[in-house]
Parts: sequence; C-alpha cells; structure tokens
Amino acid sequence: MSIDLTEETITAAVLQTFDGCADERMRNIFKALVQHLHDFTREVRLTGEEWFTAVDFLERVGRISSPTRQEFVLLSDILGLSVLVDQINHGNGSATDSTLLGPFFVEGRPRARNGADISGDVPGMPLFFTGTVINSQGEPVAGAAVDTWHSDGDGYYDVQQADKLHGEPAMRALLTTDDDGRFWYRSIVPRYYPVPTDGPCGEILRAADRSPMRPEHIHFWFHAENHVPLVTMLFRADDPYLERDAVFGAKRSLVADFVQHEAGEKAPDGTVMTEPFQTVEWTFVLLTAEDG
Amino acid sequence: MSIDLTEETITAAVLQTFDGCADERMRNIFKALVQHLHDFTREVRLTGEEWFTAVDFLERVGRISSPTRQEFVLLSDILGLSVLVDQINHGNGSATDSTLLGPFFVEGRPRARNGADISGDVPGMPLFFTGTVINSQGEPVAGAAVDTWHSDGDGYYDVQQADKLHGEPAMRALLTTDDDGRFWYRSIVPRYYPVPTDGPCGEILRAADRSPMRPEHIHFWFHAENHVPLVTMLFRADDPYLERDAVFGAKRSLVADFVQHEAGEKAPDGTVMTEPFQTVEWTFVLLTAEDG
Repeated sequence: MSIDLTEETITAAVLQTFDGCADERMRNIFKALVQHLHDFTREVRLTGEEWFTAVDFLERVGRISSPTRQEFVLLSDILGLSVLVDQINHGNGSATDSTLLGPFFVEGRPRARNGADISGDVPGMPLFFTGTVINSQGEPVAGAAVDTWHSDGDGYYDVQQADKLHGEPAMRALLTTDDDGRFWYRSIVPRYYPVPTDGPCGEILRAADRSPMRPEHIHFWFHAENHVPLVTMLFRADDPYLERDAVFGAKRSLVADFVQHEAGEKAPDGTVMTEPFQTVEWTFVLLTAEDG
Repeated sequence: MSIDLTEETITAAVLQTFDGCADERMRNIFKALVQHLHDFTREVRLTGEEWFTAVDFLERVGRISSPTRQEFVLLSDILGLSVLVDQINHGNGSATDSTLLGPFFVEGRPRARNGADISGDVPGMPLFFTGTVINSQGEPVAGAAVDTWHSDGDGYYDVQQADKLHGEPAMRALLTTDDDGRFWYRSIVPRYYPVPTDGPCGEILRAADRSPMRPEHIHFWFHAENHVPLVTMLFRADDPYLERDAVFGAKRSLVADFVQHEAGEKAPDGTVMTEPFQTVEWTFVLLTAEDG
C-alpha cells in the first residue's frame, strides 16, 4: 500500500517494494541503500531546493562524462568511496597492496612489446621502468597482462591533451610479462597533478577548500590466468603531496625509489644516455584464488 | 593526514577534508552524506564489481538524461526520495497537499489564455478543467502563474512523442489566475501509465519485479507573489493504480472527481458538445510566508 505516505511511513513502503527482487544480494543492497539515503535525507532535513541542486549536480556529472572523462569515478574518489571499496575487498592480502583505478584508465590502449618506448613522443625526462610479477610463493607469473598509464611531466594524461596529441594514446600501454615474469618499458617521468577541477567535482573541492592535488604516480593493472586481478600504483618517495592525496589512495607500501641518473650513464637497455633520466624497479605480488 | 587509510580510518579522514567548507549547511550535508555512503558500503560489503556496476549505472542515467528526459528525477522518484523530501518540507501545511514534480515538467512551455484548448490537437476525450486558487483565509489569489501538464489518453506526454508532434508542446501550458483566482482550460482526458522503463531505472523496476504504473493524474505548479510555491497533482477516484503508485506520490486528499458527461450536454464554456467529455473542478489553497 503506497498512498498517503508520510515522512515516517515512506521508508518501510519503499523497502517493501524490493521484497520481490529475486536476486537476494541485489535485494539486500537496494534495501540498505534506500534505508541510508532516507536516513541521510531525514537527518539533514533536505530542502526541495537542495534536492534540485543535487539532481542538477548529478545531471552535470553525467553530461561531462565520456569514455575519457570519468567524472562519476572522480566523484567516488573524492568522497573516499573508491578507496573504501578497495579496502573492504583487498584489505588483508599478502599481495602487493591495491589502490584505486582513478578516472584515466581508458579502453583501447595500444599493445606494446617489452622494451618499447610508450611515451608517444611526448617530451620529458626519460624513465625506464622494470617490473617483475610473482605469486605468493615467489614464483614468476609469465604471460600476465600488464596495463600501465601515467601523466606527463606537467601532470597531464594523454586524454587531457587529445587535441595536441591528435587523439593518439601516449604514456599508456598493455604489456605482457615474459617467462621470468618480467616486463619493462621506456617512457617519461610523470608528475604530481590536480584532479580535473573544471567539472562538477571541482565545485565540491573548491567549496570545501580542499586541495585537488594527487602525488606523482604510475598506474598498473594486472590480469593473469588463475590469479586475482590487481589494480595498483607506485608513488615517489619525496613527493610533497604523498600524505595529502586528494583521493585518499596513497600507501607507504607503494612508495618506490625513482632513481636519478646523469647524462653519460647507461640506461637498463644498454644505451648510453645523452641526458639525465630515471629508473624504477618493482616486484608485484599477485594472489591466486587459493591464497584468498 | 590521508595515507595508509584503512576501512576503519578512511571515513574520519574524508569527513575531516570537509572541515574547511565555509558554508556550514553544505559542510553538514556533505559530512552526513559521506558518513551514510560509507556506512552503507561497509554494511553491504560492496565488491569492486558492484562498484563498477553502480558507476556504469549512473553514467548510463547521465547519458539518457536530457531536458525532456529526467532520468535522475525518475531514479529519485522510484527510490521514494522525492516524496520523502516533499514530506519533510511540506508535511504539516494547511494548504493543498503537495506531491512530486515528476520527470515530465519541461521549461519553455507555452503561455495560454484561460479557456484555451491546450491539447495541441492530440486526439482524446475532451476534458474541461476549472481551478480556483485561494489563500489560507479563503481569499482569491489573482495573477498566480499556473503550470499544468498531463499525459494523453494512452498515458504518453508530449515529450515522449516528440517525433509525432514535431517537437511541439502539447497538453501543457502556463496560465494565469483572473481577479477571482480562477483559471480554466480545455484539454483531453489523461490516463494511468508506466514510468519510462526503457532506461536504467527500468532495470531496477524489472529486477525488483515492481509495477511501473502511476495512477492517472494532472500536474500543477503554482507560483504567486508572496505565496509559497506549490507542486501538486490531482488523481482520479476509481483509478486501479491509486494505492500502488510506482513513485509513491498518490494522496487521498488529492483525489478529484472526473465527472463524465454525455454528448449533447453543455461544456463549462457553454458549447453543446457532440461527443462525451469530462469536467474537473478543484480549489487549491496556497500558503503565504506568514502561514509557515
């Protein structure tokens, strides 16, 4: 019966309409969601004008969203929801810590061979990354798919400068680990940057006088047969924003040494470099279903 | 400090980032929102896959939304949030009860003179509506702006058949009350209908095996100088969906008599009708700021 509902009776009436949900998990999620949304609304005594503002805000988040601009992901990130979901699901592993995906992963990234330069000719200080993927027994994971993506030296991803790059992907690639579980590539050194503040999420950050800055990092997403996928990133040790990440994703366990080298030194691929460069090495541990 | 956050510490860290919000109301709303969103997420142990599904759902709600397709409003409606907000803000008035706006109000509706036929030539049984707007002292409210909109005899609004109507508005108008607080128009009899189920909200209704039906109704939105705006609708007494409105908005206090007349009877404008028609009369009571 859903007529003449009051502030007191509406929640029970709405909850009841989800009784017919055949999927028990979905039924429980929707009931909890309705209960919390209603409790929030009653608690703050939301006005009609504020409700309009919220609907308008969500519509504007939708309008600015695209495959290369994931404003709903950013909204989840700045409200700490993304990290919370990650902690709930990966809080106790003995694997490499996971952290958030962020809004800049895009489908359709190019495949690259190990050793390739994935910078897409974006100028910057050369970076040589060498990774090893192992399981919890320390054995190499061969044939793992490795997504990596990062910003340029000004803190911008390729999708944020599509005009300049003619829509070509840069500083992102899909690699595969070799028989020793290793993958390696050349790119450029990234930099700390603000999350995009020209959209609706920027309004929240400005209203709350919150810093939009994220510490410098390189993203990774691993998929390997019989292993649990891992979404993570590596941070730089001396980053000024490491302890005040706008999206709450930084972890000390993921702080890597970005080693500085001078011109004249040899890069990992044997090239004698004519300019300064950096190298980073890291070992990633994937869990198997049995570990869990 | 926002590094190495856990499931237990993240909520306090996020709440703290809103301390700098100069607007106290906004600060309180965001803190309550974050607390409830996090509590919900922990309570149901939301998985990463479910988080993806939620983000994808919201993106699809955004994609289908337009000035004539308000899917976020519909989402709020089917979760009972719209009626809850209305009850919180208008639960105790001595005015005509308010109810929800719904997703079919659109800007740019045509002005019409009292007595006009606002059907836009959409075929259907003629309906003559006569309204009177008074204040809580029973005095007429002259010069009030009256928005009205409703479906056709098949349950479709003009914006749902823009192709057929060449984008022209129909069955909606902005009228003005005369010196006696009266407004009147001719249109066609509406009908109960399903809320749009071809978008993301339809997925929720189907998954929960919920009826998408709304009882037949006519929408009104009143604006008058020195009076509190009123959003309301009138329902038909013998409607099969009156007690199970998909969006929880029906109220017995808003049930009107849709009086049936036969061919040969006189319409309120004096015309002898050659076909059956219906008439509805209603008196709407607006509050002033002083009443509140």
